This record gives sequence, C-alpha cells and structure tokens, in this order.
Amino acid sequence: MPEDVTIWTYDWVPQGPRGHVRDIRLRWALEEAGIDYAVATVPFDDRGADHLARQPFAQVPFIDDGAVRVFESGACLLHLAEKSEALMPRDAQGKADTLQWLVAALNSVEMVTVPWWFINLSRPKENPLAGWMKQRFDRLEAVLETRDWLAANRFTVADILMSDALRMPDKLGELEDYGALRAYVARALDRPAFQKAHRDQLAHFAAADAGRSDVRG
Amino acid sequence: MPEDVTIWTYDWVPQGPRGHVRDIRLRWALEEAGIDYAVATVPFDDRGADHLARQPFAQVPFIDDGAVRVFESGACLLHLAEKSEALMPRDAQGKADTLQWLVAALNSVEMVTVPWWFINLSRPKENPLAGWMKQRFDRLEAVLETRDWLAANRFTVADILMSDALRMPDKLGELEDYGALRAYVARALDRPAFQKAHRDQLAHFAAADAGRSDVRG
Repeated sequence: MPEDVTIWTYDWVPQGPRGHVRDIRLRWALEEAGIDYAVATVPFDDRGADHLARQPFAQVPFIDDGAVRVFESGACLLHLAEKSEALMPRDAQGKADTLQWLVAALNSVEMVTVPWWFINLSRPKENPLAGWMKQRFDRLEAVLETRDWLAANRFTVADILMSDALRMPDKLGELEDYGALRAYVARALDRPAFQKAHRDQLAHFAAADAGRSDVRG
Repeated sequence: MPEDVTIWTYDWVPQGPRGHVRDIRLRWALEEAGIDYAVATVPFDDRGADHLARQPFAQVPFIDDGAVRVFESGACLLHLAEKSEALMPRDAQGKADTLQWLVAALNSVEMVTVPWWFINLSRPKENPLAGWMKQRFDRLEAVLETRDWLAANRFTVADILMSDALRMPDKLGELEDYGALRAYVARALDRPAFQKAHRDQLAHFAAADAGRSDVRG
C-alpha cells in the first residue's frame, strides 16, 4: 500500500541535533495514529530554491499528505490531528483544548526556551531570558501537578509538542526544580510511539553517515 | 441579539502596550468576519486563581464561544477561522496554507522578535538575537516581494498574526531595510477592520483610566 503521508527532513545532520530534529514530532504523531508514512530528504548542507519553495525559512520538517503540502511542525501536527482521533478528540471543547495547549507550547513555552537555548550556546555569564523561562516553568508546573496530560484529560498532539519542547531544557538540567515537568516529560517519552520515532530518526542519520564516508573515502 | 463570542482582556494596562494588547488580533478577526462580540475583563494588577483557571500563564486574551473556551491568541484565531470563510479558505490546501503561515508567525517569527524585544527593553549594547532576527526578516522579505498576502493568494488570519507580530519591530525601526515587509504591514493595518479594532482597544483602556482616577480622586 503506498504511503499517503511523506515527512521531509534533512539528508544528514551533525551529532548534536540528532534525536531532536523536528521531524521526530511528526514521526511520533503518525506512530501514535498508526498511519503509514514515508521519509524523504532535502540536503542539509546546501539549502537551495527547491527547499525554500517548500519551507521559506529553510527549515524542516514539511509534509506531503496526498496532494496537500504543509510546513512548520506545529502546523503539520494540527493537520495530521484531523486524520485520527488518537491525536485529538472530536468534540468542540476537546479540539479547543488541544489547539490552545499546542499553541501554548509554540508561543508561550518555546518562544522562551528556544531563544534561551540559542543564547546559552554562546555560554554567556548570565542568560537574559533565564528569569522569564523560570516564570513559564512555574506556571506549567502548577498545571501538571494536577494532571498527566495537558488537554481533554488524555494524550493529544499538544503533549507531543509540549514534551518535545521540554526535552532540551530537561537535558540541560533546567527542570531540576520542577518535579511535575520532569515526570511529564518522562511519561511522554516512555510511550512506544516516541521510542520508535526516536530510534528511527537516529537510524536515519546514522545511515547517512555511512553514505557520506563512502563519498569522501 | 446576544453576542456568542466574548473576548476577555485586561481591565486596564499602562500606556506602553495600548494598541498592542493581543485582544486586538481577535477584535480584528471578528471585525473582518462581521461576527458580533462582547468584551469582558480580568484585573491587570491582581491576576488571581480565576484568571489562571482560564489562562494558565496569566496572559490575555482568551475567549468564550458559546460554551467553548479557548486561550492563546493564535489558537483563538484558528478557532474563529472555522466560523467564517472570510478568515480562512475552505479547501484543503487553502486551510493548510493558512495554518502553516499562522504557525510560522508564532514559532519562526515571534519566537525571535518577542524575545529580541524583551531583551531590547534593558538597552543592551548588543542584542544576542539581532542576527537571527535579521535572518528571519531576510527570508520573509523574499516571500513578500512576490505576493501581497501570505496564504492562498488572499487575506487570512495568518496575515492578522504575522502583520501584528511585525508591528513592534516596524515601530522600533527594525524593518528599515525591508521594503516588502514594511509595505505588507502598512497594507494590513490599512484595513478598516484593523482600524476599528485598534480604535476600540484604545477607547477600552482610555475609559478604564477614567474609572481609575475616579477611584483614586
């Protein structure tokens, strides 16, 4: 059976981002939903006009769903959520819950954590976003002390996005004071669909290493 | 006729953010769609449990749409877009276009511009996000050199979010080298629905000033 959904990602990335390239969010969602998919690639090193025509900021992932094309991982998740109730409930408040928490992950959490991380890479004495990030974690901790998943009393695509957004701060020790956030991330990453998506992404880039040494050897 | 949609915003804000409080995005969308709405308020000064129960990060806006409740302005816009074709086309690619560009505004543009602005408030010698912001503007300029609106060859909620996201950098002179971005913002803000939304927000907070001086006088 031909796969209707194709996830586009890079052909190769350095070790650092492996396991974190955002195609993992879409692999994870499709594994949760039991929807077959193919993986296709664009060059990491040379991001040309073909890539920009699909993703104007020269990022990945983007998808083909039959003839429909979508970019931005958050948009792809919401698009895929329409295909399976495993990703989003079908009642009006359940959909609204999923939507608002997915957007909260994009625009209230990642809007602070990703620039915090970007600045952190240059090892500043003080990160000007540290206090703001702590405020956001304080608020989210209070929510996740009361429940296992963000929206509609069940796992949804909002949890895929929020838990993935929290993986990097967690890895860097920034969630040390946040027991509920740490437990939430662990609970999410323990799901078989994430485990498979993660293994598959690592294998995808490892296979590309082999290809590159052949070319260079 | 009772309004089915209620926008929740603050009862008052200082002069600085007036005209920029994010309820403007929802006022604008509802004006574009010709949908009646009411405006209700939560205290700006004292953000208590009632507020957190509606918006866990103690922000505004959030909405009631009949019995359905939604927070995060980006999520509210996507929710409202389902109510009127004036806000989002109905064909699959038109919806996907709108969705991806709205998310691009939230997670590829505001994810850089809002923290840039936050850091800029403390007047640093150098803003560590300046180069990244310029990269994002370069890419978006290339897109908007080729068309008037981002998605589906027409105005959509994605333009409400993206043009509003660009207002602050524009005001601060950061779009000086970006003719297409400046023209895009001007084109969006020239729409009667934005003009009305802007006037109404200013009037809302001006009226609150009067209330506060009465209380204090």
